[in-house]
Amino acid sequence: MDCVFCAIVAGDLPASTVYDDDRVLAFADIRPATTGHLLVVPKRHAADLAALEPQDGARMFQVAQRLAAGLRNSPLEPEGVNLFLADGEVAGQEVFHAHLHVLPRRTGDGFGVRADFASPSREELDRVAGLVRDALGDPG
Amino acid sequence: MDCVFCAIVAGDLPASTVYDDDRVLAFADIRPATTGHLLVVPKRHAADLAALEPQDGARMFQVAQRLAAGLRNSPLEPEGVNLFLADGEVAGQEVFHAHLHVLPRRTGDGFGVRADFASPSREELDRVAGLVRDALGDPG
Ligand SMILES: [Zn+2]
Ligand SMILES: [Zn+2]
Repeated sequence: MDCVFCAIVAGDLPASTVYDDDRVLAFADIRPATTGHLLVVPKRHAADLAALEPQDGARMFQVAQRLAAGLRNSPLEPEGVNLFLADGEVAGQEVFHAHLHVLPRRTGDGFGVRADFASPSREELDRVAGLVRDALGDPG
Repeated sequence: MDCVFCAIVAGDLPASTVYDDDRVLAFADIRPATTGHLLVVPKRHAADLAALEPQDGARMFQVAQRLAAGLRNSPLEPEGVNLFLADGEVAGQEVFHAHLHVLPRRTGDGFGVRADFASPSREELDRVAGLVRDALGDPG
């Protein structure tokens, strides 16, 4: 296996670490979209969301929350934060070890999302929601 | 208070619900960026990440994972999934009740992220990481 994030977790590749616990590691993205762009990764290799241990996912989000607060309290002083995760190549995933992006945001920072928003009827929304409900394993 | 997501949680506004438990509710976004676009919200009002109870955040992520799996197993058959959260107006937050977007992705679906990626030196990455580490409350 040749996974850069596993190599970082193992200490075989350098990283600018901001947080480290028993489940997750967070470090600066080497290709930041904005200044202070961080990644939160599980220490246990998981290629994607489907492989990710739910407790690792929970911890990743909690750490992202703490990092967002840390960024806001830091001299980097972002005005906002985006969390972003890409699951699958079509979604923009480039490293196949699950990772949650924490992106400090400032006016005019060049980061943004583009989308063609639709306005479906309630009937159509209900139909789509029903398809997802039916596909969920056990009831929530 | 006039919060649309609190009104949905209270049952005072309609929603196409896909998942419901003691902490979170998930439903179809009424302005989907892609077909099957879902939102996961805490039942307890929290305007933003700073106000969000960490256990609610953890649950939101775990439910997003389950919904991503459900979407992939559904007839909607996405090729990938993005998770996205906007914290603050500059980050694109429009409803000030924290919510995690679950976006099924398909080739050519019109959704995407734009960014001006930088390539800072390791020294600069270490400097930025140090600022965040110093700003984190207690050690990780
Ligand atoms: Zn790995
Ligand atoms: Zn609310």
